[in-house]
Amino acid sequence: MPITADQVKQLREMTGAGMMECKKALAEAAGDLEKAVDVLRKSGAAKAEKRAGRVANEGLVDAYIHPGARVGVLIEVNCETDFVARTAEFGELVRNLAMQVAAAGAEYVRREDVPAETVERERAIYVGQLEGQGKPAAIVDKIVSGKLDKFFSEICLLEQAYIRDDKKTVGDLLQEAGAKTGENLVVRRFARFRLGAE
Amino acid sequence: MPITADQVKQLREMTGAGMMECKKALAEAAGDLEKAVDVLRKSGAAKAEKRAGRVANEGLVDAYIHPGARVGVLIEVNCETDFVARTAEFGELVRNLAMQVAAAGAEYVRREDVPAETVERERAIYVGQLEGQGKPAAIVDKIVSGKLDKFFSEICLLEQAYIRDDKKTVGDLLQEAGAKTGENLVVRRFARFRLGAE
Repeated sequence: MPITADQVKQLREMTGAGMMECKKALAEAAGDLEKAVDVLRKSGAAKAEKRAGRVANEGLVDAYIHPGARVGVLIEVNCETDFVARTAEFGELVRNLAMQVAAAGAEYVRREDVPAETVERERAIYVGQLEGQGKPAAIVDKIVSGKLDKFFSEICLLEQAYIRDDKKTVGDLLQEAGAKTGENLVVRRFARFRLGAE
Repeated sequence: MPITADQVKQLREMTGAGMMECKKALAEAAGDLEKAVDVLRKSGAAKAEKRAGRVANEGLVDAYIHPGARVGVLIEVNCETDFVARTAEFGELVRNLAMQVAAAGAEYVRREDVPAETVERERAIYVGQLEGQGKPAAIVDKIVSGKLDKFFSEICLLEQAYIRDDKKTVGDLLQEAGAKTGENLVVRRFARFRLGAE
């Protein structure tokens, strides 16, 4: 199995080990990067306790704790430049998004993040609810698809109605803010804890 | 397959459906609670979109955002009564724990939370580092066990040295605070976001 220059470069960046050591380690690991890291650590050529995180994006990490301290949210929103990240407008947007998550309890950022088995379970329930009503398949499909849209609009942050203006979705809000700043704005992730809940 | 009264009770609590409906749904689902919930939802007897969270614990959800807003932590610490949760001492403890996670970057609360494959990968590396040195197996075991302890003390919050007093661990800190309040104090979970990192 041939080892490419790219693989060697990547392994060097991950471990700080020399080029020849990285080549040898990759050969020994048959091209598997993770295994090659282990090979280098065993030989002592790499000491990396943790994989170096490649920090690529700008933005803010912010939190919102609801009064009473029983619900809290941590959120990361990315933009393209530190300049935009430091503006009051971006800070306000991030704070509003954190409050949105606290108030409306999204579980995912976007519908692509919902596990396929969760979607299938919902779909099966909706189909079951319509069974025996003699509806044509095309109508059943349309109703099920509408119910799934509603499901996504409840659990996906970007599809939720914005708590401060329910005529737009959170996705609309992000797009508008992105147009104003001229940058692509992305909700990267959030965590929401409710006291004593799963 | 016999359906127990406990199962019926649990399903009723989860769905709010009637007792006979729950019995039938459990029989149809061969005793599988999750499936029985789906059966009830299909028949329309249960409308629960989400499983009701059983909120059992007191405590606080708090956050700490490091100056610069590039690192943030959300944490939940539980105690037994709302009375203790509202004391200034408990609030201060929770804030200090959040700062500890921000500064020292724990990945897990306790060593039992570290996935077995992660531990095995580390162990294999340590064993590999000692190979060919002719050390007796008992000595190798002892060294590997010591290295694993060090590994856990870096990634597990409760085993880390406390940032404000490195003569004690965070676990010691929790135990002392628990002794003062007379309650069992538990770090339930935390999330730590670093801007642009995984």
